[in-house]
Amino acid sequence: MSLQVGVLGYRFMGKAHANALARLPMFFPDAPDVERDVIVGRDEDALADAADRLGFSRTATDWRDVIEEVDVFYNLGPNHVHAEPAIAALDTGTPVFCEKPLAPTLESAREMRDAARDAGVPAGCAFNYRFVPAIRYARNLIDAGELGEIRHFRGTYLQDWLVDPDAPWSWRNDEGMAGSGALGDLGSHTVDLARFLIGDIERVSGHLETFVDERPVEGENETRPVTVDDAYSAQAEFENGAMGTFEASRFATGHKNDNRIGIHGSEGSLRFSLERLNELELHREGDRGYETVLVTEENDPYVDHWWPPGHVIGWEHTFVHENYEFLSAVAGETPTASRSESDATAGENDGEFTPGFEEGYAAQEVLDAIARSDESGEWVEVA
Amino acid sequence: MSLQVGVLGYRFMGKAHANALARLPMFFPDAPDVERDVIVGRDEDALADAADRLGFSRTATDWRDVIEEVDVFYNLGPNHVHAEPAIAALDTGTPVFCEKPLAPTLESAREMRDAARDAGVPAGCAFNYRFVPAIRYARNLIDAGELGEIRHFRGTYLQDWLVDPDAPWSWRNDEGMAGSGALGDLGSHTVDLARFLIGDIERVSGHLETFVDERPVEGENETRPVTVDDAYSAQAEFENGAMGTFEASRFATGHKNDNRIGIHGSEGSLRFSLERLNELELHREGDRGYETVLVTEENDPYVDHWWPPGHVIGWEHTFVHENYEFLSAVAGETPTASRSESDATAGENDGEFTPGFEEGYAAQEVLDAIARSDESGEWVEVA
Amino acid sequence: MSLQVGVLGYRFMGKAHANALARLPMFFPDAPDVERDVIVGRDEDALADAADRLGFSRTATDWRDVIEEVDVFYNLGPNHVHAEPAIAALDTGTPVFCEKPLAPTLESAREMRDAARDAGVPAGCAFNYRFVPAIRYARNLIDAGELGEIRHFRGTYLQDWLVDPDAPWSWRNDEGMAGSGALGDLGSHTVDLARFLIGDIERVSGHLETFVDERPVEGENETRPVTVDDAYSAQAEFENGAMGTFEASRFATGHKNDNRIGIHGSEGSLRFSLERLNELELHREGDRGYETVLVTEENDPYVDHWWPPGHVIGWEHTFVHENYEFLSAVAGETPTASRSESDATAGENDGEFTPGFEEGYAAQEVLDAIARSDESGEWVEVA
Amino acid sequence: MSLQVGVLGYRFMGKAHANALARLPMFFPDAPDVERDVIVGRDEDALADAADRLGFSRTATDWRDVIEEVDVFYNLGPNHVHAEPAIAALDTGTPVFCEKPLAPTLESAREMRDAARDAGVPAGCAFNYRFVPAIRYARNLIDAGELGEIRHFRGTYLQDWLVDPDAPWSWRNDEGMAGSGALGDLGSHTVDLARFLIGDIERVSGHLETFVDERPVEGENETRPVTVDDAYSAQAEFENGAMGTFEASRFATGHKNDNRIGIHGSEGSLRFSLERLNELELHREGDRGYETVLVTEENDPYVDHWWPPGHVIGWEHTFVHENYEFLSAVAGETPTASRSESDATAGENDGEFTPGFEEGYAAQEVLDAIARSDESGEWVEVA
Repeated sequence: MSLQVGVLGYRFMGKAHANALARLPMFFPDAPDVERDVIVGRDEDALADAADRLGFSRTATDWRDVIEEVDVFYNLGPNHVHAEPAIAALDTGTPVFCEKPLAPTLESAREMRDAARDAGVPAGCAFNYRFVPAIRYARNLIDAGELGEIRHFRGTYLQDWLVDPDAPWSWRNDEGMAGSGALGDLGSHTVDLARFLIGDIERVSGHLETFVDERPVEGENETRPVTVDDAYSAQAEFENGAMGTFEASRFATGHKNDNRIGIHGSEGSLRFSLERLNELELHREGDRGYETVLVTEENDPYVDHWWPPGHVIGWEHTFVHENYEFLSAVAGETPTASRSESDATAGENDGEFTPGFEEGYAAQEVLDAIARSDESGEWVEVA
Repeated sequence: MSLQVGVLGYRFMGKAHANALARLPMFFPDAPDVERDVIVGRDEDALADAADRLGFSRTATDWRDVIEEVDVFYNLGPNHVHAEPAIAALDTGTPVFCEKPLAPTLESAREMRDAARDAGVPAGCAFNYRFVPAIRYARNLIDAGELGEIRHFRGTYLQDWLVDPDAPWSWRNDEGMAGSGALGDLGSHTVDLARFLIGDIERVSGHLETFVDERPVEGENETRPVTVDDAYSAQAEFENGAMGTFEASRFATGHKNDNRIGIHGSEGSLRFSLERLNELELHREGDRGYETVLVTEENDPYVDHWWPPGHVIGWEHTFVHENYEFLSAVAGETPTASRSESDATAGENDGEFTPGFEEGYAAQEVLDAIARSDESGEWVEVA
Repeated sequence: MSLQVGVLGYRFMGKAHANALARLPMFFPDAPDVERDVIVGRDEDALADAADRLGFSRTATDWRDVIEEVDVFYNLGPNHVHAEPAIAALDTGTPVFCEKPLAPTLESAREMRDAARDAGVPAGCAFNYRFVPAIRYARNLIDAGELGEIRHFRGTYLQDWLVDPDAPWSWRNDEGMAGSGALGDLGSHTVDLARFLIGDIERVSGHLETFVDERPVEGENETRPVTVDDAYSAQAEFENGAMGTFEASRFATGHKNDNRIGIHGSEGSLRFSLERLNELELHREGDRGYETVLVTEENDPYVDHWWPPGHVIGWEHTFVHENYEFLSAVAGETPTASRSESDATAGENDGEFTPGFEEGYAAQEVLDAIARSDESGEWVEVA
Repeated sequence: MSLQVGVLGYRFMGKAHANALARLPMFFPDAPDVERDVIVGRDEDALADAADRLGFSRTATDWRDVIEEVDVFYNLGPNHVHAEPAIAALDTGTPVFCEKPLAPTLESAREMRDAARDAGVPAGCAFNYRFVPAIRYARNLIDAGELGEIRHFRGTYLQDWLVDPDAPWSWRNDEGMAGSGALGDLGSHTVDLARFLIGDIERVSGHLETFVDERPVEGENETRPVTVDDAYSAQAEFENGAMGTFEASRFATGHKNDNRIGIHGSEGSLRFSLERLNELELHREGDRGYETVLVTEENDPYVDHWWPPGHVIGWEHTFVHENYEFLSAVAGETPTASRSESDATAGENDGEFTPGFEEGYAAQEVLDAIARSDESGEWVEVA
């Protein structure tokens, strides 16, 4: 029997997840059977088109009609519409998969986290970069102690789509709808990777800037205020004593989707860039420099599902891995990938999906602390 | 009405093409409808598994039963089984798509080319690297004269899977089945890219080496002789006066699937590496160095079908583009991608598919000349 | 008539400057004539050896005997011996060149700055990375507006010589002698480059960590406490509104002397790494990616003094440029290099040398603010 | 007592060697004492300037007056003036150091080689890239078997100073004076590195092209014919069975002095680029990719003479190493560097200097074979 999936949102993320669902049978044959049942939105014409293109059986304009009917509910809408449908679905016992950041405010995220706890069903938060083979490989190395004691984490996420002051206003520029700007949109990924790879963060110091205060509304003769940050930076202290620096910008000319991390431990170091996501630069004990590892060997995480060594995968594959793990959890299975010997994280996922709303909330606590630090001008302890 | 597709071969290439077919509706909605009808092979159990996994409706153990029933026939088997089924299919008027190199011998390739000419239906040769956005972008730049008069082409294709003298024997080590070794398997891609980007080749000088003369047969207590080259190099003179150097090896320790080209013209230069296939290194007039271009902008070839800028694609996407173009030709349509303004190759595909058996044969003429040059110790004119 | 030069310090920095002085006549024929007159230190044997090797005419064990005799006094000793000799020399009207950071404390640095103001003779601070051709080229581009309005500056300076907890204690680990650790030693370079390239810094938030609290004394059976930072990070706001992040560590496994900066402006971006100091990665308006510029063309700053394009220079050449500029200022000349058309900074140096004690002090104000911020947990305004 | 050095040629190479001689005392204190005695040329004014700038005691306009007076004679003139003065000097028992390639013709080179044999004094050939620390480190690794059995050598040397058809004619475009073009000027370096790192070459196939047939004479209203190659390529078979490809061009737009090599062995691979001469990319057994090694550690070849790890050296330093080794041989000493434990080539230089005229001649045999192969269209055995 197939899992019936309902999806709220049919644009960029809708397409990314629909593609992931469609590709599971061929590449992850032990994934649960899934049916793309219903896609939810407001514009009926666009919705019909999307259903047709993305392979959904039907459409709906009210998520309330959907959350009980489906076996899994994906909430891929803008941040400010995450909480209500997600909580409602969880309250009916329907597993939920939600885009990041969890919510525009910490309070709203906490309600979601609590609803997930109460529901006791899988509630996933879409930090897809945990599912890059190179990142998972990095995590395994760190867990195995190959880098020794971690001293430094550096995360920068650079984009440039707002450099032009006439780039149009969107919901991503609005505090009410987005919560924050580069901080929530990009920084949430950095913070989650920091937590995934290094551990919990104890305290932070933050800095937010808005370089352009208002932007034109597309097709209209008016401007709207930009009420979120165009860029942020932060310093962090991890619970294990490591230092961190985080940074993201929508004003980094020449960078499209440049999500980088660097880590230094007492025994080794590593570097990763999303624009070269098949590679991990690795410095291990005894090495004289960084080795550019192409993470496409059969025993690299998830790779045996795809192609022979040297045949690189793309950004979208992270969604396939993520959906595979999440849906396996929904179906009550421990996915194969987590059980593989090559995966030091094996076992952690038994019976549940990580990253879940717990991790989504934990990241949001850090984002919130960064924003509060920016306001107060002081370091802020993460709760 | 859907095109019924029959496919001979269910391993690596079978999976790559099945995936490509499966992805067309979501990403290339103007592609013809396709049904994965029948998959052909000898081992019935393996075949049934493959059909199930790859989404084919049925299986067959004799291609003769299939070639007339289907609308398109894909020949993805080893080189020595390319000619007979392909020619038979073409003789019945069925369009054929065939893996590269076209055949183990030039004679056999010529028969295939002639059959395609006679049939007058699309006959595609799977030089998938023509469909990398960065390569197509490079072609457009060259066609537009952005690099000026071309002086140098350099192509190296490095793998290392035979470095170990105990790596097992396979059909790829046998002259009868493969025709040649690194030369045909890897060199055919280099030669085709050289022809695609620079033009026809006038004469060549070749050098073939076999470093390990026999290899163990897996699971058996015997060895078999290696009767093809482990590596080749060649020098070339193009019709336009440019110089070329080609090289491939299965003994290049540390390289998995490293297909690189470099081009120098009077106005600019470029470099490409398949392991970073989203990038093109480009030196244009007025530049002081190579620019690392991420070829993921909306107006880059094929990119608008996928994801926003900076969201990289993988190796398999080249197959989607290739199948899109080929099937559009089969359906008698000029595919949208070829018509786009950003694509200087627009128009060339009207009514037919390139690269076809003509291009497959032309590449094979060069490979054959290289092999003959190695034997004679003299430069050889390409017919 | 030659300038008589006296130098305090004969180790690493002594050798670097002696070499620079020795190379001026051949490569910068318009530099003033210089005689390496006297080298000053405490260990007479080592001193005699050094004088012989580095080409000094004589030695002295007390700088007091020297500062009036010489035409220029170089203070290349540890930080805590910078102030007294430098001030004494300036008080006698002798121009002084001093290694960075100016002093262990801001107060001491201020006294030096004041002495330089009072003396009215050139007083140089050895921020040699201002004299890397690629850095000066970057400055010229920024001054010419090629990067537009600057939004981001990122500076990391990574070394790993203290990763091993048994690496021996040195004066660089002692607050009294060094003032601070990675912050003053490495961070001073980052802060000076930030000021050189972007402008004044308004406020900072700092974070200092000491990972290993005591270290063995070489050749003795004891340990001494580490009273400075092993690593620091900082956030900054520049007066022009740009954001900055600074970071340095002596615990960055795999990095020897990795001084990097990155800058994003509204029209372009750039990146620089000291370990590839002949290169500047540059993204300019209309570019699709970073161009790797080899800054070795004849009209690049200082390059015409050396070798043809593509013949790279090394780290030590920055000292030659720096000494050339400083000694030209001492001799009352405007050096040629500053007058070249290719140098947008032309004119700024008329009659004086930059970076001087003013710039040394200004950098120290930032370092001091970072350290105070680390203590208070609050952002600190730079005076 | 100092060695009196006489130098023919005062331009680019004259400056490079004069600088090298000047730097020996400070950095290689065990090098013989050297006096820059006399510089030889035709233009008396330019010569006087050069003597002044480069630190020579006197000038001479006829090398015949010099070769007996000096202890060492450097011939840094154009290729066609190498043989006569070098042979004359050797005939008087004066050690000679000569720029590469040894001569415009193989015959002339043979006479030089024979004269050196007869003289029994050091006769050095200026293949300075053997003295790059990274290259010497590579040689040591290969000699120690770290790369296993060598299968492939790839050498490309790219420049672009003739891309413009109006770039002026020079002696380097004339067969009589230069012997050949890119082949002799650049290819001689590639061939020598191939021989240094891999061993003797058995046979070659060559390809030479001249893209622009005549060039304007600077300052005159005429053109002169280009009678040498603008670019060459070659294939090679080494005596140990390895395959080689060589290539050089003066038409490689965007490349200034880009001398690269790549080597693949059964246990590892390496890559080197002269424009990043402090780095060696190295793939060793057990590695998953190339490691970017910064060859600046104290126990790397020659590095202990310079600066601490991470403080990079430049192109000119290769001349210092080369002169150190050559002059030590002249003085009858085994230089320290060759004796160091880190240097697997230790011992090979006892009592003589390598590369000498033997190596210069051996390289020229290969160049000559390449040129003859280009003419005949056949592979040519190297004598």
